Amino acid sequence: MSGEFALIDTFTRPFVRAGGLVRLGPGDDCAVLRPRAGFELCITVDALVEGVHFTREFGWGEVGHKALAVNLSDLAAMGAVPRTFLCALALPAADGRHLAAVARGMARLASAHGLVLAGGNLTRAREWSLTLTLLGEVERGRALLRSGGREGDVLLVTGPLGGAAAGLGANAPARLRRFQRRPEPRVEAGRALRGLAHAAMDLSDGLLQDLSHLARASGLAARVDVNAVPRVTGASLEQALSGGEDYELLAALPPRAVAKAVKRLRALGLAPAVVGTLERGKAGRVEAEGRPSDGHDHFR
Amino acid sequence: MSGEFALIDTFTRPFVRAGGLVRLGPGDDCAVLRPRAGFELCITVDALVEGVHFTREFGWGEVGHKALAVNLSDLAAMGAVPRTFLCALALPAADGRHLAAVARGMARLASAHGLVLAGGNLTRAREWSLTLTLLGEVERGRALLRSGGREGDVLLVTGPLGGAAAGLGANAPARLRRFQRRPEPRVEAGRALRGLAHAAMDLSDGLLQDLSHLARASGLAARVDVNAVPRVTGASLEQALSGGEDYELLAALPPRAVAKAVKRLRALGLAPAVVGTLERGKAGRVEAEGRPSDGHDHFR
Repeated sequence: MSGEFALIDTFTRPFVRAGGLVRLGPGDDCAVLRPRAGFELCITVDALVEGVHFTREFGWGEVGHKALAVNLSDLAAMGAVPRTFLCALALPAADGRHLAAVARGMARLASAHGLVLAGGNLTRAREWSLTLTLLGEVERGRALLRSGGREGDVLLVTGPLGGAAAGLGANAPARLRRFQRRPEPRVEAGRALRGLAHAAMDLSDGLLQDLSHLARASGLAARVDVNAVPRVTGASLEQALSGGEDYELLAALPPRAVAKAVKRLRALGLAPAVVGTLERGKAGRVEAEGRPSDGHDHFR
Repeated sequence: MSGEFALIDTFTRPFVRAGGLVRLGPGDDCAVLRPRAGFELCITVDALVEGVHFTREFGWGEVGHKALAVNLSDLAAMGAVPRTFLCALALPAADGRHLAAVARGMARLASAHGLVLAGGNLTRAREWSLTLTLLGEVERGRALLRSGGREGDVLLVTGPLGGAAAGLGANAPARLRRFQRRPEPRVEAGRALRGLAHAAMDLSDGLLQDLSHLARASGLAARVDVNAVPRVTGASLEQALSGGEDYELLAALPPRAVAKAVKRLRALGLAPAVVGTLERGKAGRVEAEGRPSDGHDHFR
């Protein structure tokens, strides 16, 4: 891309680019990471594509924020401490002027979580996409997996759901748009659940679909009391059950650990809620008790 | 994307998905890597975008091959051993039928280098893009950087250049198209240069431009004898100097190490050549001795 190096400079400037895990940051063929003894690295990649995951109704800073937030949410779900990331950007040639705003929105969230920018890539394309690879550290063998759930485990979500779906579109109230455009990844909540939860994941596709994945990975069925599912004010029941993009965490815990988990999460300013249980049955089946009969999976 | 999970299954099937560095592969919120003591991790991300880096003239298997090859080349340049990767795919909804061919082309190259697929992402988009994050291991402190070049170092390339530029377009001879569509990353060459070269990088943007980066990172100027630059038969001098995408390595070595490096590279079946030297002068300046006066940088 013509002016590629100036654009790279514009993008990288607001980020911390060395330190901690990162021995060598952007500018060489690769970044060099020096892992610490006793820790494993959690790694995830996720993309935000214009017209699919965001529209031009978003502010450019919101685009940068959300691209990083959805990836931080995956680290949160493992109970990992975010350390560093790489950012691959594709954008139309004329849109270079928006890069500084994207970078600022992303850098604010990176800074809040102590993330170092280790590298990236910049290319021309017809539409915007932001593909981020994040790495976090977790104590060896302690990552929270989807597959660890056990029969009788209590299902807990870290906060009210449905806000992101209710906040879609330019006509949504600003209070709800915020859930769609500036999700707050539950990194501290993931850390707080380590040692208490048997399994965890983040809620990106909607509670019922995501829970089905957790239950299947654990070889169990699940039961949800839909009247116990906490909702963002203004969100419908279906938005809370199936809307997606809420980026709260879903955890499966033994009953004896629930009170402690709730206490820890409330201390973080969150409003966790118990929504169901894991039980013996067809792996991945989710029974939604109390759901109106016209409930449908709007992803089908 | 509708049918997302079936597509993910189609894509991931031909790959090895666990083992070695990868304690937990695809299917959870993150992959989990268990680094080895005594090693650092080199990490790089690079994207292939339809219409920019490849066209529909490519076979789908060639698209998969090239997306991985250009990233392997970055690990090669550090002297790292490729270990694992994540693959973020964006594609038009109707193109899911090409995924199996893309995966096969990529998996063949992954298998040749012992690469494990740790994770990825799949999303709908108007045009294809493949954004790969690769990780390789290198002995602690032994990565080949661009910045290590010293005054008096000899500049060496691992093989003839210009083939990728000469092989652009559907009308290029098949022998030359191969350089454009199926580049062979010089992973073993990068390993062979460890302990001999002061600096190295891969040739993606063209010898003169890439050399300028290596020289600048080393705080030195460079001199190239253009008549010594080896060319793929059928490639012009300008294609060899500035065409880009050759994915040979460029290394800076002390004169005493050259014979040994050449011997090691020839043993790998390569045809390395000495093309110039690093010298005192304005950092990043490259003097191309013997270049015709109408030579131009076609990227400007």
